[in-house]
Amino acid sequence: MSQLFDTIIIGAGSAWLPAGMYASRYKLSNIIIGELPGGALATSHCVENWPGVLSETGKTIMDDFAKHAIAAGSTILQERVESVAKDGEYEFTVKTTTGKEYQAKTIILATGNKYKKLGVPGEAELIGQGVSYCATCDGNFFWGLKVAVVGGGNTAITEALYLAEICSEVHILIRTDKIRAEDIWVDKAKKHSNIIFHYFTEVAEIQWGMMGMTGILCKDGSTLALDGIFIAVGNEPFTGLVDHLSPEKDSEGCLVVDKRQETTVRWLYAAGDVTTNSNKFRQTIMSSAEGCLSANSVHEDILRIGE
Amino acid sequence: MSQLFDTIIIGAGSAWLPAGMYASRYKLSNIIIGELPGGALATSHCVENWPGVLSETGKTIMDDFAKHAIAAGSTILQERVESVAKDGEYEFTVKTTTGKEYQAKTIILATGNKYKKLGVPGEAELIGQGVSYCATCDGNFFWGLKVAVVGGGNTAITEALYLAEICSEVHILIRTDKIRAEDIWVDKAKKHSNIIFHYFTEVAEIQWGMMGMTGILCKDGSTLALDGIFIAVGNEPFTGLVDHLSPEKDSEGCLVVDKRQETTVRWLYAAGDVTTNSNKFRQTIMSSAEGCLSANSVHEDILRIGE
Repeated sequence: MSQLFDTIIIGAGSAWLPAGMYASRYKLSNIIIGELPGGALATSHCVENWPGVLSETGKTIMDDFAKHAIAAGSTILQERVESVAKDGEYEFTVKTTTGKEYQAKTIILATGNKYKKLGVPGEAELIGQGVSYCATCDGNFFWGLKVAVVGGGNTAITEALYLAEICSEVHILIRTDKIRAEDIWVDKAKKHSNIIFHYFTEVAEIQWGMMGMTGILCKDGSTLALDGIFIAVGNEPFTGLVDHLSPEKDSEGCLVVDKRQETTVRWLYAAGDVTTNSNKFRQTIMSSAEGCLSANSVHEDILRIGE
Repeated sequence: MSQLFDTIIIGAGSAWLPAGMYASRYKLSNIIIGELPGGALATSHCVENWPGVLSETGKTIMDDFAKHAIAAGSTILQERVESVAKDGEYEFTVKTTTGKEYQAKTIILATGNKYKKLGVPGEAELIGQGVSYCATCDGNFFWGLKVAVVGGGNTAITEALYLAEICSEVHILIRTDKIRAEDIWVDKAKKHSNIIFHYFTEVAEIQWGMMGMTGILCKDGSTLALDGIFIAVGNEPFTGLVDHLSPEKDSEGCLVVDKRQETTVRWLYAAGDVTTNSNKFRQTIMSSAEGCLSANSVHEDILRIGE
């Protein structure tokens, strides 16, 4: 009979390592399972918004998170989770793609969120070197430069407004002539002297030279010289592992959680960008805090059931 | 005519410096005003639960937060705020005790929460050397040792249950014979072999010797040898500066905020332990996250009102 853990934390969003660290502080037996140690942040070449750290690579920050979780008593398994089954009132089985199985009373899902990609040549190659999916995270690297924002939703237009304070020109590229964002944002963007709207405009290729990104080629054959491009065409929260348990989700597919980070599936908690909490403020500081809070909630709830 | 800032962040909870750092990242003109740089955490001699930092003094962590806020563009004024007036739809005046006045469109209140004190000899002298107000924060320093928890509410009893996994003995000291905590916690605590209840017991003095805390003297003249004491007799959120604006509060006096950290007073935001958010998870990681989120919300709302 295998061990029944108090909780299994499934990564690799940035919530997972702090969740494990706090779970261990609460003396909860736990393992942290995820494919990439550190998730999306670990791939950032320069992070300047983790409080107390002026500038560091995402990998260094995440390595420190991992060391902290291990020092606190967590075990990190670098594997891909294949399935999560709910076997009983508080009993889950987690299977990995290498065939291993683990049981736990609770699950903390911290699988994060994937920014939708354009899927064009140059996009993957230039991530962190011109291509970004988060203006709050990366805008400051583009002081005085020319950038584009792809998308017509609230995120795209508010990111453009933010970037307009930093960059010399902000080009908003919209596939049709319809802007989905609220009028208030659109009106403000249209009044902004350095925001330029481009309708019926689709990116065909992101181009680069010796010094990094140089511009884009559009599907109509036109080109635009740019130093950076922010892609804001939607998000895909990674809920696939628990969808069969029918947790409540919002219109974007994020898991609805309460103030304690519990989903509508009892004993299933979630933290970070896979959830609705925190007004979709997709920042490492918030994901980390939610991870810690979810460990606190697991501790409270396990105390309630325990012997 | 003095400058109208986008936001003034009033400390000194741990939310304030990250709030300023994010406000500056969003290009919001801001000042951070507070008496103590760093708040309660800055007085901790050993912090082991800030993600990525295995062990550090609270002062070092807060100094790093302050440097980060300044590097991002914030100004920190180390002064006591005397009053906050709401002059118009989005116009506040903040006065300090030295007579200075500052105007801002919005306020982020991050004044934190004070743990109620017993007010007995030895208490103030032994903070961080036996006396603690937070088991989650400090419990790990008492492995295998004898401690007491003062109080009979949910916080006191759940802290005792947590400490019982770490400490050799946990004495719960209750003033009457009434325990306010939920039965489920009390039943669990009563079953615990190393939790001992003491009724009609009030601390008169916390005693120490050459090596730190030695025990307590009770009002009935009895004594108890102890290595540590956790005081859980309630909290006082610092809302005094805004009480005249009649923000909604919960039964503990914490400011009710929405998912965006806005209080029920328009243009007044709050973050950290002074608020109801985050299930009263009074941890630096959560306060910091709420500070950052409140800056994000101020940015969104100021964009909406325009010039």
